[in-house]
Amino acid sequence: MDQHLPQSAIGILDSGVGGLTVAREVFRQLPKERVLYFGDTLRCPYGPRTPQEVRQFTLEIVHFLSRLPLKALVIACNTATAAALQEAREQFSIPVLGVIEPGARAAIKVSRRGRIGVIGTQGTIHSAAYEQALKRIDSELFVFSHACPTLVPLVESGNGHSEEARRIVHNALAPLKAHRLDSLILGCTHYPLITEAIGEVVGEETTLISSAEETARELSTVLHHKGLLADGRRFPTGDHHFFISGQPASFRRIAETWLGRPLEVEQVSLQSIINQSRTVG
Amino acid sequence: MDQHLPQSAIGILDSGVGGLTVAREVFRQLPKERVLYFGDTLRCPYGPRTPQEVRQFTLEIVHFLSRLPLKALVIACNTATAAALQEAREQFSIPVLGVIEPGARAAIKVSRRGRIGVIGTQGTIHSAAYEQALKRIDSELFVFSHACPTLVPLVESGNGHSEEARRIVHNALAPLKAHRLDSLILGCTHYPLITEAIGEVVGEETTLISSAEETARELSTVLHHKGLLADGRRFPTGDHHFFISGQPASFRRIAETWLGRPLEVEQVSLQSIINQSRTVG
Repeated sequence: MDQHLPQSAIGILDSGVGGLTVAREVFRQLPKERVLYFGDTLRCPYGPRTPQEVRQFTLEIVHFLSRLPLKALVIACNTATAAALQEAREQFSIPVLGVIEPGARAAIKVSRRGRIGVIGTQGTIHSAAYEQALKRIDSELFVFSHACPTLVPLVESGNGHSEEARRIVHNALAPLKAHRLDSLILGCTHYPLITEAIGEVVGEETTLISSAEETARELSTVLHHKGLLADGRRFPTGDHHFFISGQPASFRRIAETWLGRPLEVEQVSLQSIINQSRTVG
Repeated sequence: MDQHLPQSAIGILDSGVGGLTVAREVFRQLPKERVLYFGDTLRCPYGPRTPQEVRQFTLEIVHFLSRLPLKALVIACNTATAAALQEAREQFSIPVLGVIEPGARAAIKVSRRGRIGVIGTQGTIHSAAYEQALKRIDSELFVFSHACPTLVPLVESGNGHSEEARRIVHNALAPLKAHRLDSLILGCTHYPLITEAIGEVVGEETTLISSAEETARELSTVLHHKGLLADGRRFPTGDHHFFISGQPASFRRIAETWLGRPLEVEQVSLQSIINQSRTVG
């Protein structure tokens, strides 16, 4: 039995709003759990930044969250997972999950012919973190990775269902078509919001893997095996807490639309987080 | 880091041949891992036995397997999981996985309306183990459990694809139709072999969950988080080892058909296993 308690919260860390797709899946698949979310909205997006910057930003937030009563932490951003998961695990005594390995394992589960595609930000694809996670389990898999820098701006524009959106998605995914993939990992937490358009381009033979859904599933597995699942009744939906580093207005608008409910959003000073982190680190 | 080693084997325990669907998924999803399988073919089926008998038989085999160099154990039989998982976990220092919780978590993941069906042997359904595992995570789920005692004999007859088989499956599943389920857990390791017939009866709106597939996926997750995934190349497919308590001929025939390859099968004396277990227990 761990020293951490089943009634403690789950921390979810993201560069901004993308990790809300992971939070939404945690609310749905683990409705008894309490969530503390951190969105680094002042410094997002992480996708085009250098790995060194992303690593530093992520570890600063990990340090801030490590002072809260958490029983598990999810790095709900593929770019941050690729850059800092290993170090976050070393610095934190609780289980730390990224979004890359759950997607990799789910793709292996559904891929009968072992032909797996990965789409993500430039940072995620350039890190080759999915390819490594997949080949770590089965070195004979065929993996085709492709960066789609146009898709995050599309999702955040809120016009993901327009005719123009379909054209952007079609162009972004065109290079996948020649590879007869049997699964495609949506290796960015924004992408579940345009699943329909992506599915239309890749066709029914290719199963789409949402790293958000799969990460919530693995969080459930890990909490169970550690004896850390919350008990009792469903946690009141309005009582989860959202920290952000930027202005609340825009985050609140997107988040309340995606999650369909009013949220408790608190802005925290990034400078104080950075100072705290430097004092110790 | 665990005291057990990544190069150690995975133990898979079953009442007979049903757990081979789990073994097949472990070979597919974790091709670098070595498997030691135990099929209690002399005493199968476990489904119609009392929980006390199933518990005793399962713990005898757990005791036998605990002397082998294993890094994880899978109880690949729903009836045995329901009767003895908790005690097996207490007696063994390595991770012990059952087939019930992975199926429950997968059903929660895919069920958007929270209406989940479970089919299994009389022992599994009577234990209410799936209902408990599901409601432990979300007490507001609707769960409809239904025993299907005619399906295991059908699968073992080898005539699972005949017209008569379709009629048997149709009759067995008729009570499910009124419940508008959005997922159905195949809560017996035999059932993945008649997935097609089951799918025809329940229709496309109901996603079928194979506890064999989901258990292999969770084994991958647990080994990863314990630092116990095997490294290197694929394990040679002919080198897995199968222990059975009955005569090899019939097991070998079914197993080589299901797995599509020749197997190394070794009969062990059940009496010596029971004696060993009593000496210590």
